[in-house]
Amino acid sequence: MRAVRALGRRQGRDRAGRFLAEGPQAVREVIRHAADRVVDVYATGEAGHRYAEELAEARDRGLRVVPVTPDVLAAMVQTDTPQGLLAVCRLPAAGADALGDLLAGGPSLLVLLTNVRDPGNAGTVIRAADAFGADAVLVSEESVDVHAPKVVRSTAGSLFHLPVLTGLPIAATLERLRAHGIRTLAADGSGQTELASLDLRTPHAWVLGNEAWGLPDQVRAQCDEVVRVPIHDRVESLNVAMCATVCLYASAGSLGAAR
Amino acid sequence: MRAVRALGRRQGRDRAGRFLAEGPQAVREVIRHAADRVVDVYATGEAGHRYAEELAEARDRGLRVVPVTPDVLAAMVQTDTPQGLLAVCRLPAAGADALGDLLAGGPSLLVLLTNVRDPGNAGTVIRAADAFGADAVLVSEESVDVHAPKVVRSTAGSLFHLPVLTGLPIAATLERLRAHGIRTLAADGSGQTELASLDLRTPHAWVLGNEAWGLPDQVRAQCDEVVRVPIHDRVESLNVAMCATVCLYASAGSLGAAR
Repeated sequence: MRAVRALGRRQGRDRAGRFLAEGPQAVREVIRHAADRVVDVYATGEAGHRYAEELAEARDRGLRVVPVTPDVLAAMVQTDTPQGLLAVCRLPAAGADALGDLLAGGPSLLVLLTNVRDPGNAGTVIRAADAFGADAVLVSEESVDVHAPKVVRSTAGSLFHLPVLTGLPIAATLERLRAHGIRTLAADGSGQTELASLDLRTPHAWVLGNEAWGLPDQVRAQCDEVVRVPIHDRVESLNVAMCATVCLYASAGSLGAAR
Repeated sequence: MRAVRALGRRQGRDRAGRFLAEGPQAVREVIRHAADRVVDVYATGEAGHRYAEELAEARDRGLRVVPVTPDVLAAMVQTDTPQGLLAVCRLPAAGADALGDLLAGGPSLLVLLTNVRDPGNAGTVIRAADAFGADAVLVSEESVDVHAPKVVRSTAGSLFHLPVLTGLPIAATLERLRAHGIRTLAADGSGQTELASLDLRTPHAWVLGNEAWGLPDQVRAQCDEVVRVPIHDRVESLNVAMCATVCLYASAGSLGAAR
């Protein structure tokens, strides 16, 4: 139990190569969309009744469902109530060239998160990428750990719907994207190009910065375009999740016909 | 001090007719955009130095800045750290027909929040309404109290940029909007009309529902259109803040030329 609880902290996750999906939504989505990443599912008696369908699906997919008491389950998590359901999952394998594999598949819509630190924002960006049909989310090494319980929860299951590649160096990643003909679009309030004026019908990646200070100069300089979502001048900025949502919606509308 | 602390709770706010703006961003925005709503500003010595400009602006506008110790300030708030700055503000006057006054001004873009319960979502919707130039946000009597500290904080100052009318009965409000020629658009995943196919160049109001269960049947039935933001079928829904952000962005783009 203590080994599971340690997965609430980054060090514990990195050491064990595992992370937690807490609560019915995350557990249902990982069972349905990424069962090969699940080590074990834990359920209290009450959750066993309430989520009988989800747990039957888990067993159908060859997963082990371990019955636990509410006290034991509570001791396994660090925050909030997982409503009686928990899955221990494998982190994506390190070392392999996941970005190379992804690029070989010819993606048309990507998101690169650089320096996003707020778990709720990171989760919402992943959810928006999923909703608007992105092929993957790329996360820089400086960003929040997307396998932290708070991020996993705020993706509302989206973490298990599309590849989320982590630990990427920003400059080298931008270079590889451009080498593969993927236009890099920095979303930043300082941009000269308005979102609505962009042609988004060819493969592109949205590059998103930190909540408070946006994108560093060198990242903006490395991108093909710096793009602004026009907002009323009484407003300082959109938050990064709102910005990503609008940009990705625009991409989905333009790529829709092209894909 | 205890009287101020009581403003952290809805009962305390309703009884006193006041609420709190906590932290530099909220305090700066209320001083700049709604100084007539400020009763008093409280600042610690450190904040007095750090935010000298903001506090000078407060004094220029005839506001009283009360020096307090960090301990006293901490005792005045219920949550988090306000970074040494706090403003006690007046709630909008009850009883007056604020909606009537608003409608008389011929608004072209409104948001009606029905049953939104999560403070962060409500705050983000108000921020999006502000960013995309809405004339006002209307909040139903069933929704979260927008003057709760968590909502105030998550609006990032937007609460003080545009009128936010509260305590409205949903059905009667929809009727009044329609009587004033404002098209009522329910944003709901069940909608038959896709956002991109709508003509948004005439006055309209976005009607937004609860995070978990959307809009009730009778509200959808009362609206002119039920509008869907198209999303990938692997995704259950957008959250209400993401949905509002996309809809309002679309409105701003269409109304831009018309206004």
